[in-house]
Amino acid sequence: MGIVIDLNCDMGESYGVWERGQDAELAPWVTSANVACGFHAGDPLNLYRTILLCRQERVSVGAHVSYPDRVGFGRRHLRCTEEEIYTDTLYQLGALGGICRALGMGLSHLKPHGALYHDALVHEEVATALVRAARSYDPDLFIYAPPGSLLAQVAEEMGIRVAAEAFLDRAYRPDGTLVPRSEPGALITDPGEVARRAVRLATEGTVAAVDGSLLRLSPRTLCIHSDTPGAPALARAAAEALIAAGVDLAPPWWR
Amino acid sequence: MGIVIDLNCDMGESYGVWERGQDAELAPWVTSANVACGFHAGDPLNLYRTILLCRQERVSVGAHVSYPDRVGFGRRHLRCTEEEIYTDTLYQLGALGGICRALGMGLSHLKPHGALYHDALVHEEVATALVRAARSYDPDLFIYAPPGSLLAQVAEEMGIRVAAEAFLDRAYRPDGTLVPRSEPGALITDPGEVARRAVRLATEGTVAAVDGSLLRLSPRTLCIHSDTPGAPALARAAAEALIAAGVDLAPPWWR
Amino acid sequence: MGIVIDLNCDMGESYGVWERGQDAELAPWVTSANVACGFHAGDPLNLYRTILLCRQERVSVGAHVSYPDRVGFGRRHLRCTEEEIYTDTLYQLGALGGICRALGMGLSHLKPHGALYHDALVHEEVATALVRAARSYDPDLFIYAPPGSLLAQVAEEMGIRVAAEAFLDRAYRPDGTLVPRSEPGALITDPGEVARRAVRLATEGTVAAVDGSLLRLSPRTLCIHSDTPGAPALARAAAEALIAAGVDLAPPWWR
Amino acid sequence: MGIVIDLNCDMGESYGVWERGQDAELAPWVTSANVACGFHAGDPLNLYRTILLCRQERVSVGAHVSYPDRVGFGRRHLRCTEEEIYTDTLYQLGALGGICRALGMGLSHLKPHGALYHDALVHEEVATALVRAARSYDPDLFIYAPPGSLLAQVAEEMGIRVAAEAFLDRAYRPDGTLVPRSEPGALITDPGEVARRAVRLATEGTVAAVDGSLLRLSPRTLCIHSDTPGAPALARAAAEALIAAGVDLAPPWWR
Repeated sequence: MGIVIDLNCDMGESYGVWERGQDAELAPWVTSANVACGFHAGDPLNLYRTILLCRQERVSVGAHVSYPDRVGFGRRHLRCTEEEIYTDTLYQLGALGGICRALGMGLSHLKPHGALYHDALVHEEVATALVRAARSYDPDLFIYAPPGSLLAQVAEEMGIRVAAEAFLDRAYRPDGTLVPRSEPGALITDPGEVARRAVRLATEGTVAAVDGSLLRLSPRTLCIHSDTPGAPALARAAAEALIAAGVDLAPPWWR
Repeated sequence: MGIVIDLNCDMGESYGVWERGQDAELAPWVTSANVACGFHAGDPLNLYRTILLCRQERVSVGAHVSYPDRVGFGRRHLRCTEEEIYTDTLYQLGALGGICRALGMGLSHLKPHGALYHDALVHEEVATALVRAARSYDPDLFIYAPPGSLLAQVAEEMGIRVAAEAFLDRAYRPDGTLVPRSEPGALITDPGEVARRAVRLATEGTVAAVDGSLLRLSPRTLCIHSDTPGAPALARAAAEALIAAGVDLAPPWWR
Repeated sequence: MGIVIDLNCDMGESYGVWERGQDAELAPWVTSANVACGFHAGDPLNLYRTILLCRQERVSVGAHVSYPDRVGFGRRHLRCTEEEIYTDTLYQLGALGGICRALGMGLSHLKPHGALYHDALVHEEVATALVRAARSYDPDLFIYAPPGSLLAQVAEEMGIRVAAEAFLDRAYRPDGTLVPRSEPGALITDPGEVARRAVRLATEGTVAAVDGSLLRLSPRTLCIHSDTPGAPALARAAAEALIAAGVDLAPPWWR
Repeated sequence: MGIVIDLNCDMGESYGVWERGQDAELAPWVTSANVACGFHAGDPLNLYRTILLCRQERVSVGAHVSYPDRVGFGRRHLRCTEEEIYTDTLYQLGALGGICRALGMGLSHLKPHGALYHDALVHEEVATALVRAARSYDPDLFIYAPPGSLLAQVAEEMGIRVAAEAFLDRAYRPDGTLVPRSEPGALITDPGEVARRAVRLATEGTVAAVDGSLLRLSPRTLCIHSDTPGAPALARAAAEALIAAGVDLAPPWWR
């Protein structure tokens, strides 16, 4: 068996009459989606439609769980207790999983969203709460996390599988963290460059940081942010280049 | 095997710092609970604690689904489409079911709450949306509904089992509907009377309406409203009288 | 002094990261705006920006009050008591008025949104609640209502001024009600036709219904719906035609 | 003119069907109330009733503004921008002020609630946002703040009057901060002790810290927390002792 990699993006970020994202344009090119669960975005009817789309396009569905902060889109840090994060995550996993179940699907993974994602890389009780929730809801869930991160460590210690994640559309600093969006060069929006990064990350496991140094990430999943300008074209460029390079596209649970 | 009946009440109606209900006092005397799902009451942390209590007290957990109207406690009619009710119900079933799953439990039934309950007895698309959601989430769920009601009919036509429900603490009109709460005599708060009604409903299937006429309801589950004054004492009186009369207390799925 | 008329549209319908509407494109062509108050759309930061825009473009700000139903965008009927509508309306008037006050502006009018607008034309307690709220918050507020409607009658009986409203982008039935959006021909999206209707409504007070019969509406304000395709072009066409016809554009409170 | 002091407590903390606090029992003994504005507690109908009670009992109404976090009761830190806090505060001031206005009252003060209160003592942009909002909504508002605190300093620099606040039911550490609730002796629930502290704070401006050292606070307002056990009895003991000591009870704006 050759090299296999997953392409993921965020989906389900509409709310009521408010549309957001390009789910239909992205779906043909990705193999898994991080779908909002109603806490930062997504209402039941829009989520149902999103999951229906994922089913039609054979995209694996993961839960993009968040702090309860819709008006802030889950991007603001909210100091919660471990029990609050644990039970909020169970609620969101179940809610999204319930819609999946009605459509004959299951959840494949969990990826924290926004401020919760960042906090899970820094605060052990946040990472622990997330992994405990995944484990008690479904121990076969994958957790998407940066390789070597606190979240990845906690998951591995607790026996939950991690899909190491790299970002195709964001520049890396030499220490393996992302260049903040506020700095120049943070975003990579050239389809050719995204395609080259995808192939190199999949086949060699590496990416060049902004100073030219080589980072070894060995990812199992590659992320395109849905709100990066031209996201569908980037996803398509990555997918086509990977296929041309003989890489198989499949979600982490695929064998 | 002798007569078996279920005693149900509402639970999980706290929200954040706001407490409501007497779940701990009711739990020892009931065999199933209609647990709020976050739309009219209940937040993930309080719901987790409620379901933990149900597990400890061996109370079956059902989803008490509602219109999305927390400030109105789900008591206000909200004109929704069938698809909105269908997907809102899936979301709520999943969310509550997700917490149950983390605690090694399943959902046993669905009971609509407040205005949604009333609308499901009158509007076919409401009843249909609820039954479709139950069927696609878990076709083994029971639906609690008044015997002969539109909701019961729709469930039976769609192949979902109904647990016919009678109310121990509410007076009936001769046509089988409840005396509205605004009228005198609507509430029955005497434990002795509640106990006698329970035994008669369980053993003979009947209850006397306010005009003395006899209603045949043949219920499989008997409800005590959690907000009826003295609800725990009523539940205890009913449970003890039923046991003394040789009736077994068990949820509808019990065999 | 010659003929004076107001052009109004909805604004402030974004929510958090979700944008909606073309406020900046509409603002130069209207003289008053119905601004969401947070119940169906609008969060404090977006509303602040909307009102800042209105100040810059000299657009009068009115409160577009709604049922509390963000996910349904205020379009679903919610059966509330008169006291609930009265106090919900006060809260919304105050919240929007508070932001206006910080920017040195006042509220000019009240216009109910969506399902609340429709209910105010049919249910007297709804109309009464709205007018009571306007009167107790600021008796100088205008209420925008269809001429002769229940809402207009209640306002006049209670001593609150009405700005009779006609719709430029919607076809009328012979009885003076609007052709439902679900029927063909409901929307008028040709700028030329909108301009002709505007001038005729302003100068003669009349509009042709779908059967050709003439309706006398004698409006003081003309509405362009913000979500009608090409709304800014329609508003511009109406404004320019009115000015060319010698009609002054000004909000109802203007003298 | 003799010594004048204000007694304040929190009010309006019910939400929908959920009741919280003892507003009616506290109202006769306090001279100002910090009323929730809907972000951590309070819905329009309950707030209307609270303000009606304040009017009947001649209690001055202030805005108890909060982060938007109802399920966490505003007690969780939420990292917001200054503009978010500024506009959230304007919205809340206006909403509560709108209900006051309908009842012929005005707002007398602003007091941040929960995590926002704590953040305003530590983060300058939080304090600045609050004071800017007060100033642009109504420059005559008082801000309740601990004497010498960052919030008090920012208010004074920006020309907004501060009512220095001391707590009757909470023990102080020698540095002037409160003993955390999690530590023994944090709460003072003996009416006699509360009364003695009230008189000494009003007449001498001092209170003894837990180590016996004397703190000079010179407060203009004294707070009883509504959720301290026996809060109404504590407020009554304080009020009666102050009156007996010849201290006049009046809100800060009283002359």
